[in-house]
Amino acid sequence: MCRWAAYIGSPIFLEDVICRPGHSLVRQSHGATRCHTPVNADGFGMAWYGERDEPGLYRDVMPAWSDTNLKSLTATLKSHLFLAHVRASTGTATSRNNCHPFVVGKWSFMHNGQFGGYERFRRHADALIPDEFYAHRKGATDSEALFLAALGEGLESDPAGAMARATARFEALAQQRGEAPFVRLTAAFSDGHRLFALRYASDDQAPSLFHRWSDTRGGRAVVSEPLESDETDWLEIPAQSFCIFDGPDLVVTPFIPTKARAAA
Amino acid sequence: MCRWAAYIGSPIFLEDVICRPGHSLVRQSHGATRCHTPVNADGFGMAWYGERDEPGLYRDVMPAWSDTNLKSLTATLKSHLFLAHVRASTGTATSRNNCHPFVVGKWSFMHNGQFGGYERFRRHADALIPDEFYAHRKGATDSEALFLAALGEGLESDPAGAMARATARFEALAQQRGEAPFVRLTAAFSDGHRLFALRYASDDQAPSLFHRWSDTRGGRAVVSEPLESDETDWLEIPAQSFCIFDGPDLVVTPFIPTKARAAA
Amino acid sequence: MCRWAAYIGSPIFLEDVICRPGHSLVRQSHGATRCHTPVNADGFGMAWYGERDEPGLYRDVMPAWSDTNLKSLTATLKSHLFLAHVRASTGTATSRNNCHPFVVGKWSFMHNGQFGGYERFRRHADALIPDEFYAHRKGATDSEALFLAALGEGLESDPAGAMARATARFEALAQQRGEAPFVRLTAAFSDGHRLFALRYASDDQAPSLFHRWSDTRGGRAVVSEPLESDETDWLEIPAQSFCIFDGPDLVVTPFIPTKARAAA
Amino acid sequence: MCRWAAYIGSPIFLEDVICRPGHSLVRQSHGATRCHTPVNADGFGMAWYGERDEPGLYRDVMPAWSDTNLKSLTATLKSHLFLAHVRASTGTATSRNNCHPFVVGKWSFMHNGQFGGYERFRRHADALIPDEFYAHRKGATDSEALFLAALGEGLESDPAGAMARATARFEALAQQRGEAPFVRLTAAFSDGHRLFALRYASDDQAPSLFHRWSDTRGGRAVVSEPLESDETDWLEIPAQSFCIFDGPDLVVTPFIPTKARAAA
Repeated sequence: MCRWAAYIGSPIFLEDVICRPGHSLVRQSHGATRCHTPVNADGFGMAWYGERDEPGLYRDVMPAWSDTNLKSLTATLKSHLFLAHVRASTGTATSRNNCHPFVVGKWSFMHNGQFGGYERFRRHADALIPDEFYAHRKGATDSEALFLAALGEGLESDPAGAMARATARFEALAQQRGEAPFVRLTAAFSDGHRLFALRYASDDQAPSLFHRWSDTRGGRAVVSEPLESDETDWLEIPAQSFCIFDGPDLVVTPFIPTKARAAA
Repeated sequence: MCRWAAYIGSPIFLEDVICRPGHSLVRQSHGATRCHTPVNADGFGMAWYGERDEPGLYRDVMPAWSDTNLKSLTATLKSHLFLAHVRASTGTATSRNNCHPFVVGKWSFMHNGQFGGYERFRRHADALIPDEFYAHRKGATDSEALFLAALGEGLESDPAGAMARATARFEALAQQRGEAPFVRLTAAFSDGHRLFALRYASDDQAPSLFHRWSDTRGGRAVVSEPLESDETDWLEIPAQSFCIFDGPDLVVTPFIPTKARAAA
Repeated sequence: MCRWAAYIGSPIFLEDVICRPGHSLVRQSHGATRCHTPVNADGFGMAWYGERDEPGLYRDVMPAWSDTNLKSLTATLKSHLFLAHVRASTGTATSRNNCHPFVVGKWSFMHNGQFGGYERFRRHADALIPDEFYAHRKGATDSEALFLAALGEGLESDPAGAMARATARFEALAQQRGEAPFVRLTAAFSDGHRLFALRYASDDQAPSLFHRWSDTRGGRAVVSEPLESDETDWLEIPAQSFCIFDGPDLVVTPFIPTKARAAA
Repeated sequence: MCRWAAYIGSPIFLEDVICRPGHSLVRQSHGATRCHTPVNADGFGMAWYGERDEPGLYRDVMPAWSDTNLKSLTATLKSHLFLAHVRASTGTATSRNNCHPFVVGKWSFMHNGQFGGYERFRRHADALIPDEFYAHRKGATDSEALFLAALGEGLESDPAGAMARATARFEALAQQRGEAPFVRLTAAFSDGHRLFALRYASDDQAPSLFHRWSDTRGGRAVVSEPLESDETDWLEIPAQSFCIFDGPDLVVTPFIPTKARAAA
């Protein structure tokens, strides 16, 4: 399991989400409170949008709390839309290529969760990635494979549907070749304009997901864990939900991969 | 292209091949003379056999010349059989998981060369790796894929045949989906008892490969480039050859992947 | 604060102390129980003696639990005398040069603890290192400075006295320019023949230090925390003690830096 | 010896100096042409000024050509004033703390060159750093020591004089305790408003230093080596010069450390 945080709104310094809050993402890398692995120190990463279509990407293998580059970058970079992640490996190596977010063109993606017995059906998951996107397969995580499979399912034109179809295919593989629990996941991704997030599990234990609009900042944070313990206005996103954050707006719809599969 | 060196014989300190000679592998990482890329600084690695069946493995992403751990390890470790490699990436990332040697159980493997247009048929190369060995697919190199495919072809019982069949399959993919030159390769691999090496190209430009027996050391070095410029008794291995080094003995046989394919 | 473990006795695989026990040093890197910082993930290192006078040294900046090189090295290396360390930085950067053990010639040294207000008298601590050893000043830790100062005080001929004199000088600096608590420290060091350890504090809260002889292994472990929770025969070393482990023998004497200073 | 490049003018993407030109700094990391060490692969770094007084800082130990973070950062970051450096170690370790630029508050600094026999007088060079700046001594390079000594000499109020006095002190140490050639150096540094550069040697072999105003960009590059081989309008800065680049303006004055020393 991992922890992540995303932001959309008026430009802010990245540190205002990643480093400075009392329970910032960097603090969560050392002591997360809402997941089984309090230490999320197997690498980290962040993607941020600016003047160009393709986001900036910075990932490294050290614990987020000890990386001096991260501290300096978040203190000087401003963005209206960014994703950040601290990793607790569920098995694959600590390597930049296994760190989130993953970026292909203008799209960025990050993930928290697991597919049960993934190691046993990894080859079949890789086979879901079409040739067109296989050159972007750099590491060995389920997360990157899910992202590339979703791109293959048409993420560009149908973000919710493509992600549901890709998740459904992974869930089917877990059922056929893996083990329960088949799917537990939260994810966030973006095309540089909208921020998408989803919360889903094949059982009743979907990983936590919260969001909060800040009038002060003029923006919204979407996070695994609330960034301040004394802020009572964080809203929990229900399990089996797909969220579209577009400027200050939020649309939440059901996220039901099995229906996507049935329809496919 | 990369450079590599292997040794089989009486136990010696690893530095006697890797660091100390006038044109040692570490020197070649800075200034190789017999390949197009004099700088081989995209990571390095070594595997050495000792008391246990499985070899020790040390790989890292820094240039070999600047790694203090490598200097200390080679100065204190002794082995009767070891493989060492300095990498010049042909495209994939500098990452430990993309560094040679690769190790699966008692087997170690390292590679120099390329398959023409590999990026275009990487997905199909991955599909050649059977489920049984797919969990060992950690990186994105053609080298690791070739090794795992060869394990799937029966490296355990038929080293020469398995490697020829795997190479034939890769060559066929390069012909169908890639580009000329289809194959240029040298490789070395070991089960901890014998050292195997091969030199092959689909055209007439196979990468260089040499060996030399040393009475002083009581062992033999097998290398991309001779380790001393003033030693005149290095022997070049002919192209299209497969070598078995067993103690002081050497058996060289033709290595013709296309025949392997025809027979398959 | 950090955690460390050392061993002297019949040769064993390093993993038997570093990785395999139920509360091994690698486990302590993730969840130490007898210090304020359960996570010790700001790099690690180990020094081991073999055929040569100078020990092998392997240090890196990743958490010990995620380093594949460490796992392989400890599974294949055997030694009769070794030191291993996992670091929790008290302020200085995560860098190989700040990782323990430190090695100068045949001597290795590692440390757990702190000098109160060190950052305020670091320049004066550096000035305690004589020219002869200043070339070995690679990083910025108090630990390395203490080691080099002790070498300057005559560690070669008088290990206990030199370490007491160096500690006394650091304690005096902390009193003059730093802050309470002035000194809390455990340390282990070796010349390749004997293993030395000390436990000391200027107040009544010296860091923990234990040892245990194993008939099975024919050797003794000296550690920050017992390696197995169900072994009841770990012996605690009293505060203000200096220990000499020589083969199976152990001599414990008082360690009183202030007397060393008075005598100097 | 190392290579570096700096820029002052209208904001540009950092890649326009660091990565994209035909003989960009990244190209020079692989094949510099105007120094003895064509390979400058012992780490790299860059500091860039933006909205805040303190610059962003990104440094790492890999060769610049293989760092994916560097590629992404330079493609997305824009700055009106930045410094970038690729390192060829003259002895000290490859470590982030030994990579340039060095940053203290709003000041950034980078250096190319050497002080003869530095290792023999390093302790005395460190002693030139006042307590006030000693906490910023993170690594072991002569470069960082020179920068901190210059801050101690009053870089804030008198950039040229402070740098001359610090250089004079280092030159005196090299004469007393080191060896010829005593000093060969180029350096660039900035307070976020002006860009300073100097070229100096105690003999007649000062490292190369060039600059060029670009009307297209509305800015000026100051570099170790011209960034394009077919641009004939690069101007060489004479040896023993101190340069102040302030917007489009350039003032060059003599840089004579020995006079500074005489006056001190």
